[in-house]
Amino acid sequence: MEDKKFKVTFLPSKKTCMANVGADLLSTAIECGEYIHSSCGGDGICGRCKVLIKKGEYRTQPTGRISYQDRMKGYVLACLTTVQGDLEVHVPKESRLLIEKITDEDSKFLRLSGMYSQAADVSAGGLLIKEEIYTHSPLATKLYLEIPPPNSEDKISDLERLDRAIKEKKDVKIMQTGLRNIRQLGSLLRQSDWKVTVTLGKRNETTEVVIIEPGNTENRNYGIAFDIGTTTVTGQLVNLNTKEVLGTKATHNKQAAFGDDVITRIIYATEENGLERLHHAVIDNMNEIIKQLILKLDINLNDITGVMCAGNTTMMHLLLKIDPTYIRKEPYVPTANFLPVIRAAEAGIKIHPRGLLSCVPGISTYVGGDITAGVLASGLSEEKKTTLLIDIGTNGEVVLGNSDWMVCASASAGPAFEGSGVSCGMRAINGAIEKVVIDKNLNVRYETIGNDKPIGICGSGYIDLLCEIFKANIINRDGRINTLKTERIRDLGDGLEFVLAFKEESSGEFDIVIKESDIENLKRSKAAIYSAASILVKKMGLNFNNIERAYIAGGFGNCIDISKAVCIGLLPDLPKERFKFIGNSSIIGAREIMLSFDAMKKAEEIARKMTYLELSNDHGYMEEYVSGLFFPHTDLERFPSVKK
Amino acid sequence: MEDKKFKVTFLPSKKTCMANVGADLLSTAIECGEYIHSSCGGDGICGRCKVLIKKGEYRTQPTGRISYQDRMKGYVLACLTTVQGDLEVHVPKESRLLIEKITDEDSKFLRLSGMYSQAADVSAGGLLIKEEIYTHSPLATKLYLEIPPPNSEDKISDLERLDRAIKEKKDVKIMQTGLRNIRQLGSLLRQSDWKVTVTLGKRNETTEVVIIEPGNTENRNYGIAFDIGTTTVTGQLVNLNTKEVLGTKATHNKQAAFGDDVITRIIYATEENGLERLHHAVIDNMNEIIKQLILKLDINLNDITGVMCAGNTTMMHLLLKIDPTYIRKEPYVPTANFLPVIRAAEAGIKIHPRGLLSCVPGISTYVGGDITAGVLASGLSEEKKTTLLIDIGTNGEVVLGNSDWMVCASASAGPAFEGSGVSCGMRAINGAIEKVVIDKNLNVRYETIGNDKPIGICGSGYIDLLCEIFKANIINRDGRINTLKTERIRDLGDGLEFVLAFKEESSGEFDIVIKESDIENLKRSKAAIYSAASILVKKMGLNFNNIERAYIAGGFGNCIDISKAVCIGLLPDLPKERFKFIGNSSIIGAREIMLSFDAMKKAEEIARKMTYLELSNDHGYMEEYVSGLFFPHTDLERFPSVKK
Repeated sequence: MEDKKFKVTFLPSKKTCMANVGADLLSTAIECGEYIHSSCGGDGICGRCKVLIKKGEYRTQPTGRISYQDRMKGYVLACLTTVQGDLEVHVPKESRLLIEKITDEDSKFLRLSGMYSQAADVSAGGLLIKEEIYTHSPLATKLYLEIPPPNSEDKISDLERLDRAIKEKKDVKIMQTGLRNIRQLGSLLRQSDWKVTVTLGKRNETTEVVIIEPGNTENRNYGIAFDIGTTTVTGQLVNLNTKEVLGTKATHNKQAAFGDDVITRIIYATEENGLERLHHAVIDNMNEIIKQLILKLDINLNDITGVMCAGNTTMMHLLLKIDPTYIRKEPYVPTANFLPVIRAAEAGIKIHPRGLLSCVPGISTYVGGDITAGVLASGLSEEKKTTLLIDIGTNGEVVLGNSDWMVCASASAGPAFEGSGVSCGMRAINGAIEKVVIDKNLNVRYETIGNDKPIGICGSGYIDLLCEIFKANIINRDGRINTLKTERIRDLGDGLEFVLAFKEESSGEFDIVIKESDIENLKRSKAAIYSAASILVKKMGLNFNNIERAYIAGGFGNCIDISKAVCIGLLPDLPKERFKFIGNSSIIGAREIMLSFDAMKKAEEIARKMTYLELSNDHGYMEEYVSGLFFPHTDLERFPSVKK
Repeated sequence: MEDKKFKVTFLPSKKTCMANVGADLLSTAIECGEYIHSSCGGDGICGRCKVLIKKGEYRTQPTGRISYQDRMKGYVLACLTTVQGDLEVHVPKESRLLIEKITDEDSKFLRLSGMYSQAADVSAGGLLIKEEIYTHSPLATKLYLEIPPPNSEDKISDLERLDRAIKEKKDVKIMQTGLRNIRQLGSLLRQSDWKVTVTLGKRNETTEVVIIEPGNTENRNYGIAFDIGTTTVTGQLVNLNTKEVLGTKATHNKQAAFGDDVITRIIYATEENGLERLHHAVIDNMNEIIKQLILKLDINLNDITGVMCAGNTTMMHLLLKIDPTYIRKEPYVPTANFLPVIRAAEAGIKIHPRGLLSCVPGISTYVGGDITAGVLASGLSEEKKTTLLIDIGTNGEVVLGNSDWMVCASASAGPAFEGSGVSCGMRAINGAIEKVVIDKNLNVRYETIGNDKPIGICGSGYIDLLCEIFKANIINRDGRINTLKTERIRDLGDGLEFVLAFKEESSGEFDIVIKESDIENLKRSKAAIYSAASILVKKMGLNFNNIERAYIAGGFGNCIDISKAVCIGLLPDLPKERFKFIGNSSIIGAREIMLSFDAMKKAEEIARKMTYLELSNDHGYMEEYVSGLFFPHTDLERFPSVKK
């Protein structure tokens, strides 16, 4: 009977596949290409893979994650449910990972900092990269050559002739060319009448003749910088010749179907085909983003000669299909922080088949190249002043230092501020509620990105919302919802929730709400990040007053209301002018590094110089964290502006 | 009807295959893996692919290359014969390419020069490589590492840890590691308890971590030097740690089935699948030699970490599957003389899957890395004295110069002195007649290698034989056989021949003879080589008396009787003490270069410094060549010792 297969159909997508009797529904969904949320990776803990069985035989296990009412309707957790016959399974919107949707990132920070000449115009929150700190020497450079053909007086070989022509135009010390290029060289040179374009790639200290093309394609040279986040994958198309940013797209990291955080994914990677699946998931993301980025532009995949990736250490392992097992085994050491430049095709990335893939060097097991890139982009490593960089992501990383010294730490914040793991969370795209004001009479006003009908709440929206419901006394300092007399506060069977927008105002099937469980998630996130910063400052013998500059990075919104972030205790209570919001500093840094070999050298220096402090076994950190599980903090004295 | 296939069986090998109606027998034989001689590549000119149709229908074209008697018996040329039905084809021994036979090369020169400590013992004819001119720094070096495992105080990544351990033991500047090694690094280091052996490979200026293996395999590090000749492929197994030579094997270049000389093969390469076939033919040779070399030794393919190849420019193109078309198109330029180090597996060579393949840099279109290697091995480039190096092979190359200047030229000599293209020719292996004495009464004495029953005649045997039959007046100065009264001189229908050994004394089915056509071939070879040397000397404003040293290289025998080589006009008439026979200098040089990166640098310098003189369009050369088509030469004054 083990061999009997049943047909499982997922609705509304109508994706189907054949599953063995006893197969669990979550794995079956993945097999089908149906991406379902699963924070815990299939352990029945997070309750996010809730689905409704419409028809067919199944077995499921009891769980407290499904309310009695939902259970009666036929809701189950996909991970706890096994196939016993042909099935029709409805995946409710809240359980669906909207990974197919690749969206434009409309962050002015990304754009402006890309256009050096406009950098001066950036107002408060703008980025501090100075124009042309790093010489323009991109990962891949194109060079058009009109090579004098051989004659009876000048008979050196084709390859030496090509090398000579390159060296006449460019100072290249160690040059390498692969066999495939040499194999086609003879006919290529002659068929193109000795007029070719070579793409020179930087592979550490050596220069590789990566591509040789007929004719002049010198002005078709593009690269893509990627920020590979645990929750969000962002790609930015850049003209490698002019440094112009041509577009930025982001999408949910498909790996989220296998777990919300890096640890769950590392565990999943040890399962059969687990590493393979995680690898392909992110590569799919990247290929889809690349396809979208060049859509409608006169650019094809062969014009893309390089990719630069920044991401946390686990993401980089999965990207390159390097077993991440040892990251979570004592003494927690990654396989590599400094990764060699490889051919993008080796990882399955579809650009020019010989185009290069480079990764921003990482710092330690839990602080990756995204932070190296962020430090570079923010200019922290060049600052004279004592500076704090807080990167709010699924891992919250904090860097403290200046041009003389740098320390960093990492806190497992969870994806709540990226709009994941919270019931109405979404990324900062059109339709996301990004600003919220609630007056004393509980009148609610909100603004959405693009002024569209609201679909959900993005990170900056949650910061506003938390602050407002706290100030309006809708929640207490512990984060529990007070049962005030208003139709906006209700309990539909799985705890109290506050309705921000009723379905009549929104474009969705659901009311847009914040649940107590969401508040709990957000509270843990903000506590993790604040306490990491606090401990780091303390460990260096400083206190927050010594911090002269604080950069806030992250992809959670177009902007952040600093005073509201302070109000909920996410950020320390510093004078507002010391803060600067710098957006997705990882992708900005990755782009700089892609555009300049000097910037890569600087990134390597940053990664080597930075001292990593491990918080997980630090007693003080746990205490600090627990104290942070209040709004804004157990110790109100630390937040004078909020107390007032 | 075009689709009808017929079964063709070759005898005595019993190899069979299915051929389309109209397919020619030569191509069909290749398809079958039946290797038949074909000097002209299937143009019906050389007459070497003579086969006997035993049974079946065929069509053939008239040819003067088959005697009337043979035609009556059913002999045809395979290249001019097409399949019209099921066929049984007998391939006579003389038409068979004995490629499967891989033989030991028992040359003392190869052995002795390999053992530096014995170099002093080498008597006349020995090699001049001085002990330890070049520091021992082989293509691949193994390094056993006991790496301190990570702990909470020392948490750098596995890859950086490995790099650190390597750099503690060895001064390495630019180090690269490929993704495949990184992917297995985490588990490999832990499973081997942090005790691993790394193989470091030289790729120009950079060092690559080529292989990482568990445990200590430091003393298992072998390389193979190859001389890829047009006619003969020779491989030598070397312990890369101790420099010891462990064996030398040689075989017929399988490409000979597609043509005797490089031009015929280049033409064949332009045909459909031609390049592919030529490439696979030589790779097959190399893999078979490698297999034979390690047989009976405690060495497996994974212990072989590097291969160094020397060969003429066309051979190197075919080895790496680089289109050689442009070598024979004006202005005769190769695709590459300096080839990058690649993975041997990329070319199909079966050693360690990540082992390296390096090629000795070539000089020009018609003077390849075999000559660079020969110059290095002979020490010519370090000589103060004016020195001549003559390499007798299918291409005869001549180098003239000293440590200040070097010029070279190439002459298309044909494979006769390598025992190919002559009716009883063979390589210098056991059973080959290597010495011949004929007295005035036409009594014949000969010696064979290994004192075995004679099978054929090797290059040095032909030199002796020509000289002896010339002195005994069996041939005239033009090379035609005089009809003396002896049973040794006869005409069996295809011209006069002289019997060196009757089948009763030999181990074969045939008498061992030299035909007028063989003498013609040998005469052309010797004229080509002598005239190249003569013109080169003349062009430099010198004459042969100015030559203070002459190195004779080539794989045609264990030794060469210099006075007999002078007697036939192959070598100039210099005082005997100025000559040194140095054997296969190409493989000796390739081995030196494999054992020392300094030697590789030297080889590059030689290849760059050498001036190539083109003889083919030199009017003086053609005149000189025609004058050389006599024994010893038209101008007897040039050979006073012979005249006497």
